[in-house]
Amino acid sequence: MSKLVRIIIVSFLLFGGVLGQVAEPILMPIPEKIEYNNSRFEIEENFTIGFDKIITERLIFNANHFIKRLDGRTGTFFKQGLINENAKVDNPSLVISIDREGELKPGEDESYKLTVLSNKILLKAKTDIGAIRGLETLLQLSGADKSYYFVGCEIEDEPRFVWRGLLMDVCRHFMPLEVIKRNIRGLAAAKMNVLHLHLSEDQGFRVESREYPLLTQMGSDGLYFTQEQIKEIINYASLFGIRVVPEFDIPGHATSWLVGYPELSSKKQEYSIERKWGIFDATLNPINEYTYNFLDTLFAEMTSLFPDQYFHIGGDENSGKHWDSNPEIQLFMQQNDIKDNHALQAYFNNRVLKILTKYDKKMVGWDEIQHDDMPKNIVIQSWRGKTGLEKAAKSGFQVILSNGYYIDLIHPARDHYLNDPLPEDIDLSDEEKKLVLGGEATMWAEFVTEETVDSRIWPRTAAIAERLWSKNLSNDIDDMYERLNYISFRMEELGLLHIKNQQMMMRRLTNNESNLTPLKTFLDVVEPVKNYRRGQLKDYTQQSPLTRVVDAAVPDAPDARLFNLLVDQYISDGSGKDEVTDFLKIWSKNDIKLNEIISKNPILEEIRELSSDLSYISGKMLVLLEGKKIEGEESLSEKFENSSKPAGQVELIVLNPLKKLYAHLK
Amino acid sequence: MSKLVRIIIVSFLLFGGVLGQVAEPILMPIPEKIEYNNSRFEIEENFTIGFDKIITERLIFNANHFIKRLDGRTGTFFKQGLINENAKVDNPSLVISIDREGELKPGEDESYKLTVLSNKILLKAKTDIGAIRGLETLLQLSGADKSYYFVGCEIEDEPRFVWRGLLMDVCRHFMPLEVIKRNIRGLAAAKMNVLHLHLSEDQGFRVESREYPLLTQMGSDGLYFTQEQIKEIINYASLFGIRVVPEFDIPGHATSWLVGYPELSSKKQEYSIERKWGIFDATLNPINEYTYNFLDTLFAEMTSLFPDQYFHIGGDENSGKHWDSNPEIQLFMQQNDIKDNHALQAYFNNRVLKILTKYDKKMVGWDEIQHDDMPKNIVIQSWRGKTGLEKAAKSGFQVILSNGYYIDLIHPARDHYLNDPLPEDIDLSDEEKKLVLGGEATMWAEFVTEETVDSRIWPRTAAIAERLWSKNLSNDIDDMYERLNYISFRMEELGLLHIKNQQMMMRRLTNNESNLTPLKTFLDVVEPVKNYRRGQLKDYTQQSPLTRVVDAAVPDAPDARLFNLLVDQYISDGSGKDEVTDFLKIWSKNDIKLNEIISKNPILEEIRELSSDLSYISGKMLVLLEGKKIEGEESLSEKFENSSKPAGQVELIVLNPLKKLYAHLK
Repeated sequence: MSKLVRIIIVSFLLFGGVLGQVAEPILMPIPEKIEYNNSRFEIEENFTIGFDKIITERLIFNANHFIKRLDGRTGTFFKQGLINENAKVDNPSLVISIDREGELKPGEDESYKLTVLSNKILLKAKTDIGAIRGLETLLQLSGADKSYYFVGCEIEDEPRFVWRGLLMDVCRHFMPLEVIKRNIRGLAAAKMNVLHLHLSEDQGFRVESREYPLLTQMGSDGLYFTQEQIKEIINYASLFGIRVVPEFDIPGHATSWLVGYPELSSKKQEYSIERKWGIFDATLNPINEYTYNFLDTLFAEMTSLFPDQYFHIGGDENSGKHWDSNPEIQLFMQQNDIKDNHALQAYFNNRVLKILTKYDKKMVGWDEIQHDDMPKNIVIQSWRGKTGLEKAAKSGFQVILSNGYYIDLIHPARDHYLNDPLPEDIDLSDEEKKLVLGGEATMWAEFVTEETVDSRIWPRTAAIAERLWSKNLSNDIDDMYERLNYISFRMEELGLLHIKNQQMMMRRLTNNESNLTPLKTFLDVVEPVKNYRRGQLKDYTQQSPLTRVVDAAVPDAPDARLFNLLVDQYISDGSGKDEVTDFLKIWSKNDIKLNEIISKNPILEEIRELSSDLSYISGKMLVLLEGKKIEGEESLSEKFENSSKPAGQVELIVLNPLKKLYAHLK
Repeated sequence: MSKLVRIIIVSFLLFGGVLGQVAEPILMPIPEKIEYNNSRFEIEENFTIGFDKIITERLIFNANHFIKRLDGRTGTFFKQGLINENAKVDNPSLVISIDREGELKPGEDESYKLTVLSNKILLKAKTDIGAIRGLETLLQLSGADKSYYFVGCEIEDEPRFVWRGLLMDVCRHFMPLEVIKRNIRGLAAAKMNVLHLHLSEDQGFRVESREYPLLTQMGSDGLYFTQEQIKEIINYASLFGIRVVPEFDIPGHATSWLVGYPELSSKKQEYSIERKWGIFDATLNPINEYTYNFLDTLFAEMTSLFPDQYFHIGGDENSGKHWDSNPEIQLFMQQNDIKDNHALQAYFNNRVLKILTKYDKKMVGWDEIQHDDMPKNIVIQSWRGKTGLEKAAKSGFQVILSNGYYIDLIHPARDHYLNDPLPEDIDLSDEEKKLVLGGEATMWAEFVTEETVDSRIWPRTAAIAERLWSKNLSNDIDDMYERLNYISFRMEELGLLHIKNQQMMMRRLTNNESNLTPLKTFLDVVEPVKNYRRGQLKDYTQQSPLTRVVDAAVPDAPDARLFNLLVDQYISDGSGKDEVTDFLKIWSKNDIKLNEIISKNPILEEIRELSSDLSYISGKMLVLLEGKKIEGEESLSEKFENSSKPAGQVELIVLNPLKKLYAHLK
């Protein structure tokens, strides 16, 4: 990319005189109130952290976590050393002051007030959870010129929604402990407060049950969390003020249960772990008391393992086929005046609700559990279309929004960012609006492994996090992307692999080619296909490799967005022609170099034609841009047509601006 | 680097007609016998793995591990799917045939025979451990042109030494479970078979003891392995045919024990976890029966936790000061005719040996435990100088070589590679030679964190692995480096961070500078200072950041070796002038660009002058190379002098070839 383009897009505004050459910090999520005070706090080795009265394990842990990141960035050899509960510090540089330890429940106070003066930093919060949210903001206030500093300011901040989560599906592809832990760190950096673990699926049951050991012995390929590991996850999340909500998806999505316990099924047959993706028919039997006894015993175990108040029972996508084909179930429905499968599922859910209530849990489920027969004390997680949330709230249910936050569907950050749980035009009363608890990004795991999952979660989830935390967002997309890119870089210090694994994957794709630029140039203008198209284009199973071009590509093709802006500008006022030309030159020459690499690496064969089309089209656009005529317009149309089809399950995202440019120039 | 330079150095020899355009595979460690058979096995989606008669958990695990790496590289959607013990395959492509499950003990059969034909692959071994060594070789036989294939050949292979290990110090900086696991995968890829865990130190006690919980409660900052995690490590290593040898370092290096259990000490005082590096005086009390009772109870627990036959008691660097200053200990020595501290330590070791013998373990310790009073059934790990190994073997002790394999001292791979445990001129009889079991690389952890440790272990440990596995090595260093670089790249598929974290660290050092080339150019010609110099140049503690330039630099500065070769060649016959010029041009211009980055990032300030000196010198050399005279020779000498000093604890490794060039040109 040319320097000029960068300058156009990435504008780090200097406050100049106002702040004494201190660059405006890049904050995400944006705090509710911030006032700069024309000062800066110098970060030096005598920097210390002290606590005012109340010290909690969470504060100590996060003070050290803060220091390690700060010294990592600045290389400062802080003299204070490890911070522990006995640490007495005279006149600490940063004073953290809280009223009490925070509780892990929705609505807990997460507000904080942060004051950065030239010689002192004060962080005040009601709870230690609020305080650690403030520590994340303070880290974002760090900057550098001749020295490292925190930008002087006063901030008051609190979240807009009480439920700000990420669902991780650890079933379709198992995600080992370390993946969970590093993403917990990421969530905390984004001020999220819920990790929703999707723990059972057709493709795997992922938690050790001592009551029903066959669940994992026969339903997990040996890939599951032991109870010790679950405790470790919960404890780790708790240190970051993050709740862990478990989901056991019933009555559908339950094949893996039935491998070891076929007695639970609605249809007598042999069950084996599903290896493909989709909606399957295996369903728990809602008329068999064995099912409820089993669930009672299992949930007794699981509700004691997971301390959170909320317990998610899934409830989605029950195909109903095994209910339809089971005469006993049909008879039961007749006898009990249950008019359809949805009502039968409500019956099932009410039975499950009784069990969960006994264990003092609140029930959460997907849209499908909403039914007039259900009491209003359950929580609906809305995923099916724009109306689910409204419908749930209007019916008096508490609701969490996930529709629009399906990050597995590979939409750009922009789409998720603009998806407001409570848009201005929503048809809900103020009382109904209060039922909207917040939202959750969902990382369904058909097409991610531990190698790629970070690049699907981050940085886009930080955009969702801002949506859920910050009030009165301006919806300035370019500004959002600018901040998101920087925050994404900063998240690497948490051990997240979202950036660095792309390079690694490119090395593997090219058998360690020394010059990765041609492949990177291509990756920067393509994106994986969206929605459910990937599985339609190719037959995937749980064992398929996720190491191809589509897996190295990211949901926000970085150059595509820039190029689109440039083309729009060029068309509107003729400016930016040089930058447009720069891009076109790079792309027009890229295929020759990329082609050489493709020829040595069969795994890349699938993008050969698309790469060639891009170069061809770019070359023609260059000619037009020079004011010359091109020959072979038919051939060009063909290339436009060709390159609108996915190749290797990636789409050429610069195609639209190229078409716009062509329409303008021809 | 110019293309020409690469071509000179990296020469992938094609067999041409002989093998039908199949490139010679890059193998490391080199097998004992290999014969190519002029064929290739095409890797296609119908590739299957089957077992002949005996199937073990280890084989199944490794068959799946093999397939995931192979499909990762090739993107092949293998139809076989997950391999499990019930898998029946007709006419499998790869047949794995073993006689029995392998045992985890030194000397277990690790031989294998591998035959790759165009339509069949046969892997035969006595044990499943031998078979999985062969699977690693098979992966190295994979290649690509228009398709992916295995190179046709017949290989017979077995290790030269029975003990091929890596010591990981998890004490000075704790290394979480995931670090251990990914390095176990690395060890297996290098055909190593021992993971030596250094578990207790002045700076931390890292294993949960249920008998003595204060060991970790007061001696670990909460950073330790639970017994469940230790079992997980042992089980994981076992799947890869790797033994886990625990080390509890006594009687010195024991500060962390004394924080919770001061009764064990030789000197009454308060103890706290050491935060600095060095040799400390805290020492277990060898005349107090409490010590032996404690060790008996603790080792009863630990010997049952660690199933390996061998148990390491450290025994190194006992300063003896607390023994000297304790009148009771002095009296005891007089009364028992113990003439010096070394003899007292032998008394202590003999007492410990009794305990370990009771628990059916063989004792291992560092050089210092060798003493005439010790029986010959203990094993010496030799670290102190070249004569330790000879001395031990001559005295009749079994011995493991670590001197020369101290990878924490940041020597280039070459030094370790040439360090043969049994060089031709060694003064040992054949019987004495048999006492040399092998060697261990030692990853002491003063200057590594989980972020950087992989880059210190890999790729150099793969060179050590070859030394210990392969017989009759040619000692061709250029060939070794060429293979090592490729194997290093391949190791990324195991989740190792040794390559990708350098990029991440550069981004952090530069606050996400878009063009990292100037910093990379600098990093490619410097290395961290060697031996114990780093700690002498700057005061480090356990809490100091390890995120500076020195931590991003690697022990084998890649361009330095190449440049040195080029200069030697140019001096000897005048050829390669263009390549020398290319390097000099890059370096002469680099400082302007790097300087810009340094100015925005105070953490880089420490290399400003060295960068400037390199550019200055390179510019002058360019002038000389053009046959012109230079002015200001005094200033040049000054720059040479200046740049011979470390900056930011890195050394300019191209300085010597630059000096050679200058001497030649002036």
